[in-house]
Amino acid sequence: MRTDICDLLGIEIPLLAFSHCRDVVVEVSKAGGFGVLGGSSFAPEDLKRELTWIDENVDGKPYGVDIVLPEKLGEEMAVDDETLLAMVPAEHRRFVQGVLAEHGIELAEEKLLGMFGAGVTGDIGERLMDVILRHPVKLVANALGVPPAYVIERAHAAGLPVAALVGAKEHAIRQVEAGVDVVVVQGTEAGGHCGEVTTMVLVPEVVRALRERDLMVPVLAAGGIVTGEQMAASVVLGAAGAWTGSVWLTTHEAETAPWTVEKMLAASSRDTVRSRARTGKPSRQLRTSWHAAWEREGAPQPLPMPLQSWVSETGLRHVDKLAETGHEGARELATYWVGQGVGLMDRRKSARDVVIEMATGYADATERLAATLE
Amino acid sequence: MRTDICDLLGIEIPLLAFSHCRDVVVEVSKAGGFGVLGGSSFAPEDLKRELTWIDENVDGKPYGVDIVLPEKLGEEMAVDDETLLAMVPAEHRRFVQGVLAEHGIELAEEKLLGMFGAGVTGDIGERLMDVILRHPVKLVANALGVPPAYVIERAHAAGLPVAALVGAKEHAIRQVEAGVDVVVVQGTEAGGHCGEVTTMVLVPEVVRALRERDLMVPVLAAGGIVTGEQMAASVVLGAAGAWTGSVWLTTHEAETAPWTVEKMLAASSRDTVRSRARTGKPSRQLRTSWHAAWEREGAPQPLPMPLQSWVSETGLRHVDKLAETGHEGARELATYWVGQGVGLMDRRKSARDVVIEMATGYADATERLAATLE
Repeated sequence: MRTDICDLLGIEIPLLAFSHCRDVVVEVSKAGGFGVLGGSSFAPEDLKRELTWIDENVDGKPYGVDIVLPEKLGEEMAVDDETLLAMVPAEHRRFVQGVLAEHGIELAEEKLLGMFGAGVTGDIGERLMDVILRHPVKLVANALGVPPAYVIERAHAAGLPVAALVGAKEHAIRQVEAGVDVVVVQGTEAGGHCGEVTTMVLVPEVVRALRERDLMVPVLAAGGIVTGEQMAASVVLGAAGAWTGSVWLTTHEAETAPWTVEKMLAASSRDTVRSRARTGKPSRQLRTSWHAAWEREGAPQPLPMPLQSWVSETGLRHVDKLAETGHEGARELATYWVGQGVGLMDRRKSARDVVIEMATGYADATERLAATLE
Repeated sequence: MRTDICDLLGIEIPLLAFSHCRDVVVEVSKAGGFGVLGGSSFAPEDLKRELTWIDENVDGKPYGVDIVLPEKLGEEMAVDDETLLAMVPAEHRRFVQGVLAEHGIELAEEKLLGMFGAGVTGDIGERLMDVILRHPVKLVANALGVPPAYVIERAHAAGLPVAALVGAKEHAIRQVEAGVDVVVVQGTEAGGHCGEVTTMVLVPEVVRALRERDLMVPVLAAGGIVTGEQMAASVVLGAAGAWTGSVWLTTHEAETAPWTVEKMLAASSRDTVRSRARTGKPSRQLRTSWHAAWEREGAPQPLPMPLQSWVSETGLRHVDKLAETGHEGARELATYWVGQGVGLMDRRKSARDVVIEMATGYADATERLAATLE
């Protein structure tokens, strides 16, 4: 198969796979798709180690990196733990401790807020770009608004296209006008942070808006896409291919917590929720008693980003560990970001098999559609 | 083009058009699609008049009727206006009067609750079926849960297939097991009452679930579909065609309030809201200051169905009339049910032109997809 994105990236299957796991990236690229390493949580030296490993294992196939950099960086923050702790209201800390306690989990306050950093500040973005440009990366993606100007400039100077995620027509126009080369249009069914408009509507709306303005860049469809039929539907809707995330979470290669994988394989499309109760912004996750707690009468409002992550992340990672031991309360609470496509994910597969099945499903669906015109 | 639904209904284009307007029904069927008259709000004698008019104008082309009948009917209610009035809390009446007043609209309390009936009770369903079976109707659809057993039995006895709308996999299975012949799978992007799962995910999920259980009936995709590309995407996702509603609201033939048509043509996909503030159940509508009022701090919770309609419908119809006179407050409040596909509806067209454009778009998209395999 061949679309604009295949030509741009030198791939055989118009399937991009976002994953935090380097094994998934390698397997997808080797199978003919395009793996994109989610590199935002890496320090520059860790990213260098991951990319080096990928280079040694990907057989020369193309791959990309996704970084999450705000358009404007904050000043380097030099605050101590006590200051940060004071930014999280006692009400929220007590609430989370209460929710955990209801599920039979004790977590001392000093541990509850143990895991957070000062965020993306200073020159970390430049340093990540330094690393990226020393490896044969074929695409730089940014999942958070318009990429900083230096990302676009340095990538373009190196002949690298830049991709960005959007959840609204206006954002797509702004991104392309800022120099973005590939627009990932993400519907509300997507796992993680997402807007309110669905993939079925948003993809043709963005394609039309860009075409009307002569902004001719490849568009990728994202949100809910876990099968080859859906990948073909993306192309029918005017996209050049699909950007996927959730479908890789239940592959053998992924590092998803095993109990969460079980939950995902059993889930239907109605078992996710778009909630502010993990990061402070609406993000789609497996719906569990964690969300029910935050929705009930008298619960505090989720804090703005990044404070809500500070109050939720350590507790939820502790929950994941306990869930593996069979702890029932932890198994109820355990959650992770995933899209509505989870309803179509019903068994563990290798990443390679997912790519092959999606390519086959794409071809079959194409023939089925063509047959309706015969 | 030809799919299972074309064979079942004897049509050339796998496009079903739900409309309360008989002119739309006739124009769609004459153009090669399949018009479905929304007949729920008709008394039996009115339905007879509408179907007779359609028969005289449709040139023998096939069409259908959609009725909204609960699986179990309530007892015939014999309550006076005062009793009904007493069921709507004073808080809600005062709130609506206040919202209208903020927009410069006065509506006396006795007028506010002037428009409601006792609902679908007694033998009205049987009497509607009497009317339907005396006309050359080719499909009976039911938009509200599983159709009553007598609807399925009488339709089948007359050789008529029965369609039903679903918003979840489990409902689709239950419907087909109850005898439904065509399942309309409606995503959250749809106008009117809708669930939370998107068309892109729900269609393949339902198709897979029915296939696994050997429940082999045609599935139609609904929700957000207003273009030929999207109709083709529906078929790619496993549906036999598309069920549409919103796209007809801005046609020349539709009876949509003119000011609301203007708002729809200007709207983007982000200008709808899935809200309980009109009928009491979540339904998707144009987002206006009406919804902002119901969402603000201190606003009452929307009442359960049908009470919320009693407290909202008369006021909103009054708003529509005032909006036509140029009343600014009314123009802000004016709303109607419409799906996210409204973002792709940008000019008035005839219903016939919509059908032709969708058929052309379907064929073009099919060729475009097939070309990716060459």
